[in-house]
Amino acid sequence: MTAPTKRRYDPDRKERIVDATIGCIGRYGVAGTTHRLIAAAADVPLGSLTYHFASLEDLRSQAFRRHAERMSLVYKAHFDGVRNRKQLVDAVTELVHGEAGADVGDWAVAYELYLAALRDPALREITESWMRTSRSVLERFVDPTTARGVDALVEGLVMHKMLSTTPMSRADIRAYVLRALA
Amino acid sequence: MTAPTKRRYDPDRKERIVDATIGCIGRYGVAGTTHRLIAAAADVPLGSLTYHFASLEDLRSQAFRRHAERMSLVYKAHFDGVRNRKQLVDAVTELVHGEAGADVGDWAVAYELYLAALRDPALREITESWMRTSRSVLERFVDPTTARGVDALVEGLVMHKMLSTTPMSRADIRAYVLRALA
Repeated sequence: MTAPTKRRYDPDRKERIVDATIGCIGRYGVAGTTHRLIAAAADVPLGSLTYHFASLEDLRSQAFRRHAERMSLVYKAHFDGVRNRKQLVDAVTELVHGEAGADVGDWAVAYELYLAALRDPALREITESWMRTSRSVLERFVDPTTARGVDALVEGLVMHKMLSTTPMSRADIRAYVLRALA
Repeated sequence: MTAPTKRRYDPDRKERIVDATIGCIGRYGVAGTTHRLIAAAADVPLGSLTYHFASLEDLRSQAFRRHAERMSLVYKAHFDGVRNRKQLVDAVTELVHGEAGADVGDWAVAYELYLAALRDPALREITESWMRTSRSVLERFVDPTTARGVDALVEGLVMHKMLSTTPMSRADIRAYVLRALA
């Protein structure tokens, strides 16, 4: 007989497993994210993962979804006080300049999602819904076509800014934003 | 005494190993790309890898560099016949519409590079040089600031197009390109 498992009251366990998965994907990549690493990071027994999630893929996709939702909230918050066109230009410029309020680890998880969605079309439901949320924020100020273009520009600029060794000035970012909103 | 190794005349071996590495990264990701898989894909003995390359990281970075150079050539070729502004708008529009002439496997390798460069700043020398090459193509037609903005827009649009479940029309792409070139 094995010793009985200590059952502690742990209502946030499922949430914590998803968070731990996001952390593992950021640190080890999708490929390096195993049941074992997630369980250790979440401080739960291995069996807890199979209890709460149908598969590692299911867990991964819930982790990606939550990460996208969090990044969406930060994106949305950037536009909270925007009342006029000048403030809109400022907000988009600052969004790019501040890398959409996300750090390298957050972007690493995002790029892991892009890569996974490129390989597995089923995950494009998550990227699509993320893009729609961003666009709906911009659609408070501009038409849907412009919103889609501005959102893609923000993506490309943040990416090129992070992958570059040459700084990108606020003035240049503002110029790009002004054109995209024209 | 072990049997002597068959020495065949194989001048392209090093090139072939780099190509095999690109293929493995596209299929298995950086994390899944091992010495063993590369050697099998290149049809060379394992020892050949350590003979030609200082480390797996060295090989990986040479593979990324070659992949970036190839994607740059395709990018550049898009602008070969461009003589005026209308042709420039057409060329950038077609570049986005045709996903920069690259397939999902090519983009998977590119995103593996972006992700690797996000985690390892040393690899940003490769992404920086890639972006500079693209911009220098555009600088035949527009100023350097505009070129950087257009290149980032192309990146963002291609990415959002591939990760979306909603088509992006040529007309919309053209509208974004026209604004970015304004």
